[in-house]
Amino acid sequence: MLLENINSPADVKALDAALLPALADEVRQAVLNRVSVHGGHVGPNLGIVEATIAMHRVFNAPDDKFVFDVSHQSYPHKTLTGRAFGFLDMTRLDEVSGYSSPAESPLYDTFELGHTSTSIALASGLQKGRDVMGRHENIVVVIGDGSLSGGEAFEGLNVAAETGTNIIIVVNDNEMSIAENHGGLYRNLALLRQTKGSAELNFFKAMGYDYLYVEEGNDVYKLIEAFQKVKDVDHPVVVHIHTLKGKGFTPAVENKEQWHWSMPFDLQTAQLRKPSTSESYTDLVGQFLLAEMKNDPSLVAVTAGCPSVVGFTPKLRAEAGPQHVDVGIAEGEAVALISGMAKAGAHPVLNVNSTFLQRAYDQIAQDLCINNQPAVINVVMGSVLGMNDITHVGFYDIPMLANIPNLTYLAPASWEEFVSMERWAIAQTGCPVAIRVPGGAVVHSSDSFPTDYSTAPTARLITRGSRVAFIGSGASVAWIEGAAEILREKGIQPTIISQTFLTSLDEPLLTSLLPDHQVVVIAEDGAVDGGFGQKIAAFYGSSPIRVLCNGVKKGLYDRYSYSALLAQSRLTPDTLAADALRALQQ
Amino acid sequence: MLLENINSPADVKALDAALLPALADEVRQAVLNRVSVHGGHVGPNLGIVEATIAMHRVFNAPDDKFVFDVSHQSYPHKTLTGRAFGFLDMTRLDEVSGYSSPAESPLYDTFELGHTSTSIALASGLQKGRDVMGRHENIVVVIGDGSLSGGEAFEGLNVAAETGTNIIIVVNDNEMSIAENHGGLYRNLALLRQTKGSAELNFFKAMGYDYLYVEEGNDVYKLIEAFQKVKDVDHPVVVHIHTLKGKGFTPAVENKEQWHWSMPFDLQTAQLRKPSTSESYTDLVGQFLLAEMKNDPSLVAVTAGCPSVVGFTPKLRAEAGPQHVDVGIAEGEAVALISGMAKAGAHPVLNVNSTFLQRAYDQIAQDLCINNQPAVINVVMGSVLGMNDITHVGFYDIPMLANIPNLTYLAPASWEEFVSMERWAIAQTGCPVAIRVPGGAVVHSSDSFPTDYSTAPTARLITRGSRVAFIGSGASVAWIEGAAEILREKGIQPTIISQTFLTSLDEPLLTSLLPDHQVVVIAEDGAVDGGFGQKIAAFYGSSPIRVLCNGVKKGLYDRYSYSALLAQSRLTPDTLAADALRALQQ
Repeated sequence: MLLENINSPADVKALDAALLPALADEVRQAVLNRVSVHGGHVGPNLGIVEATIAMHRVFNAPDDKFVFDVSHQSYPHKTLTGRAFGFLDMTRLDEVSGYSSPAESPLYDTFELGHTSTSIALASGLQKGRDVMGRHENIVVVIGDGSLSGGEAFEGLNVAAETGTNIIIVVNDNEMSIAENHGGLYRNLALLRQTKGSAELNFFKAMGYDYLYVEEGNDVYKLIEAFQKVKDVDHPVVVHIHTLKGKGFTPAVENKEQWHWSMPFDLQTAQLRKPSTSESYTDLVGQFLLAEMKNDPSLVAVTAGCPSVVGFTPKLRAEAGPQHVDVGIAEGEAVALISGMAKAGAHPVLNVNSTFLQRAYDQIAQDLCINNQPAVINVVMGSVLGMNDITHVGFYDIPMLANIPNLTYLAPASWEEFVSMERWAIAQTGCPVAIRVPGGAVVHSSDSFPTDYSTAPTARLITRGSRVAFIGSGASVAWIEGAAEILREKGIQPTIISQTFLTSLDEPLLTSLLPDHQVVVIAEDGAVDGGFGQKIAAFYGSSPIRVLCNGVKKGLYDRYSYSALLAQSRLTPDTLAADALRALQQ
Repeated sequence: MLLENINSPADVKALDAALLPALADEVRQAVLNRVSVHGGHVGPNLGIVEATIAMHRVFNAPDDKFVFDVSHQSYPHKTLTGRAFGFLDMTRLDEVSGYSSPAESPLYDTFELGHTSTSIALASGLQKGRDVMGRHENIVVVIGDGSLSGGEAFEGLNVAAETGTNIIIVVNDNEMSIAENHGGLYRNLALLRQTKGSAELNFFKAMGYDYLYVEEGNDVYKLIEAFQKVKDVDHPVVVHIHTLKGKGFTPAVENKEQWHWSMPFDLQTAQLRKPSTSESYTDLVGQFLLAEMKNDPSLVAVTAGCPSVVGFTPKLRAEAGPQHVDVGIAEGEAVALISGMAKAGAHPVLNVNSTFLQRAYDQIAQDLCINNQPAVINVVMGSVLGMNDITHVGFYDIPMLANIPNLTYLAPASWEEFVSMERWAIAQTGCPVAIRVPGGAVVHSSDSFPTDYSTAPTARLITRGSRVAFIGSGASVAWIEGAAEILREKGIQPTIISQTFLTSLDEPLLTSLLPDHQVVVIAEDGAVDGGFGQKIAAFYGSSPIRVLCNGVKKGLYDRYSYSALLAQSRLTPDTLAADALRALQQ
């Protein structure tokens, strides 16, 4: 095996050129080994194998710097930079992450990357920094066509061109983002592919770039030739390479969207090893929206590059027709779009993962909330506390959203509560509403919920007791109900409250606890710093009630275990009950 | 006078065509009337007079929708839509705002706008909403060349083209953003101007737009002809008009940057009515950075379209040379750039207004903080509590930044403290640091400050007293010192603390107050919701200390009086002292 002897890029350079296609086959097989057992990004990595080998053959990493956009296509790079064990040794798969990581490879991985469209902007900093420091290394970016729709990619392109010195942007054009590509730019990419790069009308040239087209983007020799042409260039250049997403694994070529990322699967049958049979909030939300659309032709579901966030498969998207818009990876645009649509009288509902909504902070504050448009944002947690890669953590949404004026942010604790909130949010015309789609397993409830949240209390009193009050929201309501059960076994009948509005306290309810409660324990469904608990603590600041805020401490978390994080954050029924009892005895 | 009889666009349409240039002269004079007495945007409004008249002559507002980017060029539109009094009647200038505002004109102003590059994205929502609702009005956007550098503008362009139906984007190309234009895109605009729009290489066509060029962008008849061509078009079109910024006021034509916005001035002499003679943090920061650059060739000051945020005039920018980068209006790029530069070993310092930093939330969290790069951000408040237009409020920075993992956010209370923090921040290699440049008048201090904030306590104990502790930060330190003086007159010797780190509490110091303090009063230099006070309240949640959090309540504030807002937020020395005394007596 060749790959076993590749410990660094020097070994790639030393290899007989005739063996490079064989190396590519091995890298491809290594990627498949890993993703079929461990899960991960399939298509993006299979498509970029030859380009990665060619990069390491021509450029001199680690002196030359590589920046992979999103870095979900950096697996081949990992196999060539001392981390093949994470792909070949089935006992060591967990030792490499799914994204580029300087913590894992200080020499070869330049940035921790996971959000889209950041690579050129980061590289424009490497470019300017290099110039100021008087060095001359090559700065090489790999960015997929789907990532080009994000505003940060455009801003980076614009500034790197103005800087005017060496930067090499490899545009990996596989005619696909996660779902299909969208937008005006993609017609130009198609024209460039059709004309083999010769069309006069050229987005990259218009942006000030020198330009090179490589039709055979999976031919390692053609790629080496192209990279040799641009190595050490003294100005910005785009190398537009046409690749086949999923190359080498037929199912991934035939269904690019499904095989962008996959749970572990059988390589022979291409079937998931543990097909999910349980219901998910994701699917329920998508089906709910589709059903509602039929009664309301002005209801439009919006997604930003990830229609799967609400289970919108191509089939369901076809069903929705013009009542679904995917803006590509452009969360800022998505928020401005729904504000404009609401202004025009339509009923837009944006569906977006919590971690990616961070990209639209200013649009939420300015375009949506200052303009007070009655659009709806479903903030999808996906898993309990969100995804668990360092760049995808979803539990900072409450600190981010709770302090934006004019926003109503709601946290349902069950599917039925979500439905009642969502129905109201879509129909009302008073204010922008975000709704936190809970993480984890679907919870059902037979309680009755308000039909009009504009007049409903901003918290839901589940049980009125005394001495101790537990306050949770969303998923954490189940945790405090468990804690309350433990207290009842000890003869204490605690109050249980669901903080349904994350953007305002229920002051009458909180005040009503004063006479007969000594302790309030808050269970954040996420971050404790900037969470709703600190607002409750401030509300009780001049009262004798003791307030404990439990939640995830501020910090970076990478590939954590949910259950361990919940225990460490004292969010389990046991820890919440123990803290309440201890405070009661103080 | 013609303008006195223009009460709505119908009156513009009814006017004899031969009188349109005279109307333009009157509008221009009205703009000058207002800005010379009241202050405001000068050049942008003078350049767009004819285009605005032509828009109202050809399109049918309010059925057709106009969206002005930033809306700092919407004064002519205001004069033609029933608000000429705000320009002609010197007693009514305050009745119209400096930006478009549906609160002011529900019929003719579509959105509250003030941040840059949002217009096309918002209009893409009007476009899609119109289509869904089955209507056919024209959607007309006016966006300046400088605003095109922002990522949201690109995302909007991309999606509006994909939607594919009527949208008319008027690109007002005056060869200037606030300072000069920057970036690769601007070479293409220059090429299009040089070729009178005929160059094959055309950014807008590459983005999927039909395209029309108007060389005489201040000729009302040429503009009417162009708009008539595109009215009711069934697909997206760009009308690229070449205008003269500042037209009609020679000083504004000759010095476009200085006259982009101005304080009140004399129309004859073009001198400011009240030239500022006092020192400002803005100027001091710029001069400090310039001086430091000379000792550190790797120190690079970065700005994002507003070099004036640190007083970087063209002269000072020339002095800085390659040690200054203006990325154009692209705050996300600016943050990614400084992360990349720091990674490359340079010492970048981004200078940005608090309100605009909102546009880089995700880049701060992902590109900078997860990557833990030692870059510096100066968060400029400008005035006490920031600028006071509804879209420019700067006092939401603490809730936004304080909960982002790995960020150190510092709040100096004097110029000397700023210098000690900035010196340390630039030299250190441990972490990303943001420093809040205080608002208002410059405060000087002869205290000594730490040289190493990585080992310094995270709050500064100014006076150790008992019973009452006041905790402030930045500008509010002066307010609590005033409150402490009042308490001393009543025989109480309060503790005074400056919360220098907005991202972490000084737990040992807070704990040390427990034995001999009954009341802690926090004075936020800004928003109370999500401020550092709520963190302190949570810290003391299970103790008997009473905690009061004073600060600006969550809400939208427009053209408020600083002093009234401080009083209403109980942030004045009197109110802080009164609240402390009341809590002490409870």
